[in-house]
Amino acid sequence: MIKASPNKKLKVHFDPDNIDIIVEEGENLLKAAISAGVHITASCGGAGTCGTCKVLIKKGEVESTRTEKLSLDEWQQGLRQACQSKVITDLVVSVPVESRLETEVLSQEMKMVSAAGEAEALATGWGFNPPLSKLHLKLPQPSSKDNISDLSRLLRGIKQRYHLSNISVEFEVVKRLPHTLRKNNFKVTATTLVTAIKTKLDKRRPTIINIEPGDTSSKHYSLAFDIGTTTVCGQLLDLNRGRVLAEGVAYNGQISYGQDVITRIAYCQKPGGLKELQQAVVSTINGIIEKLLNQAKVSLKHIGHINVAGNTTMTQILLALEPKYLRLAPYTPIANFIPPVKAKTLGIKVGEQVHLFTFPSVASYVGGDIVSGILGSGVYQRKKLTLFADIGTNGEIVIGNSDWMVTASCSAGPAFEGGGIKHGMVASSGAIEGFEINPENLKPVIYTIGGEKPRGICGSGLINIVAGLLEAGVISQNGKFNTDLSTKRIRRGGDGYEYVLCLAGESQTGKDIVVTEVDIDNLIRAKAAVYAGCQTLSRSVSISCHDFEQVIIAGAFGSNIDIERSITIGLFPEIPADRFIFIGNGSLLGARLASYSTDMLDDARRIARMMTNFELSENVDFMNNYVAALFLPHTDGDAFPQVSQRLKKLPPRHRGKELAF
Amino acid sequence: MIKASPNKKLKVHFDPDNIDIIVEEGENLLKAAISAGVHITASCGGAGTCGTCKVLIKKGEVESTRTEKLSLDEWQQGLRQACQSKVITDLVVSVPVESRLETEVLSQEMKMVSAAGEAEALATGWGFNPPLSKLHLKLPQPSSKDNISDLSRLLRGIKQRYHLSNISVEFEVVKRLPHTLRKNNFKVTATTLVTAIKTKLDKRRPTIINIEPGDTSSKHYSLAFDIGTTTVCGQLLDLNRGRVLAEGVAYNGQISYGQDVITRIAYCQKPGGLKELQQAVVSTINGIIEKLLNQAKVSLKHIGHINVAGNTTMTQILLALEPKYLRLAPYTPIANFIPPVKAKTLGIKVGEQVHLFTFPSVASYVGGDIVSGILGSGVYQRKKLTLFADIGTNGEIVIGNSDWMVTASCSAGPAFEGGGIKHGMVASSGAIEGFEINPENLKPVIYTIGGEKPRGICGSGLINIVAGLLEAGVISQNGKFNTDLSTKRIRRGGDGYEYVLCLAGESQTGKDIVVTEVDIDNLIRAKAAVYAGCQTLSRSVSISCHDFEQVIIAGAFGSNIDIERSITIGLFPEIPADRFIFIGNGSLLGARLASYSTDMLDDARRIARMMTNFELSENVDFMNNYVAALFLPHTDGDAFPQVSQRLKKLPPRHRGKELAF
Repeated sequence: MIKASPNKKLKVHFDPDNIDIIVEEGENLLKAAISAGVHITASCGGAGTCGTCKVLIKKGEVESTRTEKLSLDEWQQGLRQACQSKVITDLVVSVPVESRLETEVLSQEMKMVSAAGEAEALATGWGFNPPLSKLHLKLPQPSSKDNISDLSRLLRGIKQRYHLSNISVEFEVVKRLPHTLRKNNFKVTATTLVTAIKTKLDKRRPTIINIEPGDTSSKHYSLAFDIGTTTVCGQLLDLNRGRVLAEGVAYNGQISYGQDVITRIAYCQKPGGLKELQQAVVSTINGIIEKLLNQAKVSLKHIGHINVAGNTTMTQILLALEPKYLRLAPYTPIANFIPPVKAKTLGIKVGEQVHLFTFPSVASYVGGDIVSGILGSGVYQRKKLTLFADIGTNGEIVIGNSDWMVTASCSAGPAFEGGGIKHGMVASSGAIEGFEINPENLKPVIYTIGGEKPRGICGSGLINIVAGLLEAGVISQNGKFNTDLSTKRIRRGGDGYEYVLCLAGESQTGKDIVVTEVDIDNLIRAKAAVYAGCQTLSRSVSISCHDFEQVIIAGAFGSNIDIERSITIGLFPEIPADRFIFIGNGSLLGARLASYSTDMLDDARRIARMMTNFELSENVDFMNNYVAALFLPHTDGDAFPQVSQRLKKLPPRHRGKELAF
Repeated sequence: MIKASPNKKLKVHFDPDNIDIIVEEGENLLKAAISAGVHITASCGGAGTCGTCKVLIKKGEVESTRTEKLSLDEWQQGLRQACQSKVITDLVVSVPVESRLETEVLSQEMKMVSAAGEAEALATGWGFNPPLSKLHLKLPQPSSKDNISDLSRLLRGIKQRYHLSNISVEFEVVKRLPHTLRKNNFKVTATTLVTAIKTKLDKRRPTIINIEPGDTSSKHYSLAFDIGTTTVCGQLLDLNRGRVLAEGVAYNGQISYGQDVITRIAYCQKPGGLKELQQAVVSTINGIIEKLLNQAKVSLKHIGHINVAGNTTMTQILLALEPKYLRLAPYTPIANFIPPVKAKTLGIKVGEQVHLFTFPSVASYVGGDIVSGILGSGVYQRKKLTLFADIGTNGEIVIGNSDWMVTASCSAGPAFEGGGIKHGMVASSGAIEGFEINPENLKPVIYTIGGEKPRGICGSGLINIVAGLLEAGVISQNGKFNTDLSTKRIRRGGDGYEYVLCLAGESQTGKDIVVTEVDIDNLIRAKAAVYAGCQTLSRSVSISCHDFEQVIIAGAFGSNIDIERSITIGLFPEIPADRFIFIGNGSLLGARLASYSTDMLDDARRIARMMTNFELSENVDFMNNYVAALFLPHTDGDAFPQVSQRLKKLPPRHRGKELAF
């Protein structure tokens, strides 16, 4: 038989990243971009339905069909949907500004991470006793009077010097023992890890996971990771000094397969899909690890342990655990407590000995990131009645204190992340975040992240815009435009009425940037889901939304929002602003603390067990509360007395359509 | 670059096995035989120094140099040392009867195994509670009211139905959980294994190692193995009924690399040597497993667990643990307690889930086989003062009872296995085993195993021959021939004086079969080592060799010997014969019991901890006792009053050279 000749190799050049990649003829252009590390937005996971992955073919040709997401005009300009295109010649491709995922946003993500350490709400009172320990030993050499086995010699030494018994040992350590002991005259360093959890009956049982010749006890590091749907944050920790040596962040490599967990789970159902997504996030993790080690000049072989916090979907995909049933009713995760795995078996480039722990989860949509956040913020340690909220595509809410905790997840949709919004974008440079309105002429005053020319609207910007429009009477409490107002800023566009934030001449995209009634409606649905979730959960434990003594907002999105304006639109209950605390990336914070303290690791399990999850998707109360919340701030104005007061004080022409002259 | 053309393939045909194998040009002929599964004796492990691997090249040519082990005559006949020959043409090779390892001996090995079950000395009182369990569960399907994780559902079911909590689970099981649960409507069978050992503080902590759809609880099997230096015995166990379904035995595939552990350890020092030997024994194990499964019509996937007992060297090589330090003073094993390993990682062809347990050892030369023998024979359960001996190349001795145990290993050399004996052979068909002497004409009466024409002398035969010659006065108490006797049976041969057992015309080899003074000397050294070991060990605990209330003889060799005659030559102390018990393959017996009972598995660890090892190699008492024992039966005749009495009663001419007329 004659073997088919190998596929032709073609070169694809991506602008403005200026990156080349060689691919096989027929390769999907979106996949080529992913392989090249070029970040292209692709909300639908390559299904061709979102139209966000448009790229301009500057040179060469692709095989592609035009879908309704590309206008004939765009097609003739040379725009193509990357996910719908096959590479058939060498290419020069330009990724337009709208399709680009800027990495600059990441520095902001990192800022959150650092800010967390300074937050008021932090777990306290934990002892510094990392689950990973390094034990240096000078063992006596074997003699005819003392010829016990190598392992017995090691264990005896540990018992004598460190008063530890009941230690187990990994087979791989046994295997390397004779050489390692004899390499440096029976001076060795053993690394132990506590894997089992302390219970009433059992003492902790450390396992020897590594053995090195000589004294390596000064090199004692671990890694903490927050695996988010959008970004992955990592920290390199010095376990001798209990401090962060380096930190890094990157987009989750899965982002080009879909922006939300549901799209990613769907992608996993394709043949090889789960493996592909698993490798995507592992590759992101590997990139971060490499940077962290370079930054801190730490050698790979001295990493002993990885703690990972992530939502249930991210955790299951990282571990290559079938995520299918997370999105099918009744939404069951595979396991809340997943045994540690060897990181290397996942493809993570660390030593054979490195175990990866994942934070326990509570339910399909209340994951290890929330448990980690509760751990890091110490909610479970205090008597104070607390509302903890991590808001993104899903709003996860926890209510409780040191005695009890209830939790729920409410599907907010992508509006808070800038998704599903006509000119929505992630919170990176050029995103309109600040918004004020001139009450006289109704002209906007906008400011963008990075002070650049506007490119779109981010989630926190949208809240500010809608709150501003509401308080100025440009929109009414049902989110509809007051079209009687005498301003050109309100106009009828392709998606109904819209308000022009920025004219084409001033924008980075060369197009007008607007907020539409559909956008406002999306935001109202998102905020209503979160508020209704909070309300339903509160009522389920017979408390009122106003009883919270503390409100902790976690997550990158949460940390950017304006509390007053969030209350104005009815996202959060009307509670004095000084009870709100931002902790930034609480998930990473908890992962770090669990690396520092075995007690905290135990606490994480305790927290996961102690939380009661309320499933809202089929809850009638929730549905009623949700419908009641589809109003600005709420149909029940009494729940928002101050906001209602302010809205009433507006001059008549500003109070909405029905009152306009 | 031009790639070198692949090596030429050549065919080697082995007679009388009638096996063909294709090898590369230049392949070593001994290795070719090993690959082909043709058993050739090779005591020196291929060093060329023992001359036992002679084969006849009937057709074709090998590249070989003549060593002193081949006479010019043999060379001209076409005989070559297989280990010194390279295949350079197609070959037809005949393996002469002396070089052949007969597989028929194995059936005898198996007989021992079966006999063990009927022995008087057996562990008693153990509960039938296998470490491996199968738990069938009919779990409720998830619903919106009950959407706990798949794993929580499984663990809840196990707790409800089997009242087991504190269970851990392997990651691989978690991975397969969602599919398996849903394959048969949430009816599943979980397999659990107790790996951790019960201590005062800890409860037993079973681990879920497998999950299967439906009810597979009726198919519940494990394997028990004794890995001997010469042979490997295995049993397939039905864990529901507690019985042996099939048993099998084969030569240890390492046998062609050297007959004793020292040669094998030396072989492991060659590059790739350890791996080669590891694979050799794994291939033997795989062969046995295949046979057992076929025999019992059991499917591979229903095997859940393997228990292996072997000496320390065999155990370390099986697990690919460097055996070097076992043979270098001060003789340290890597570990007495080795954590369980996944059998598949060793190359054993079983399911991913199968854990392989190795019996704990006591020292470099008191291994898991002895611990297993003590377990199986119940020595540790009784108050009776017991001598336990497993005699082969090494004589391992245990003295003690339920309160205490001491142990030692004495290097007996290969004489008991027929090694180092001019016409020695293993105890297979044609081996002279029985021996009587006509006191009048000093002619021998011999009988062989299988009743075939004589081929050589096995170890137990040698004991009978030497005892017979001593009692007839043909040899004196120092093992020298009474050359004044008027019989042609005593003559001067190449190795000094010898006694002709069988003339060429009557033998299978076409040569005279003789026992030489050198052979007798070798036997005396062997028995002196065992006796001195027993004596040294007894004195170390201040008891006399005559105090034993029970003597348990384990092992294939031990089971074939004549007790009276063994006492006559001074191998064992003079104790009434009715106190001797043969248990056959005690090692396999213990491995089986530990598969049936978790208590027994715990006991094995307890036994290993409770035994105190005495290192004899540098012990002055032992050396003195050894020298004193280099006499038949012993220089201290008072220690053997009845034997001394019998020897005195012999007619004068039969009492040895110095008394001859």
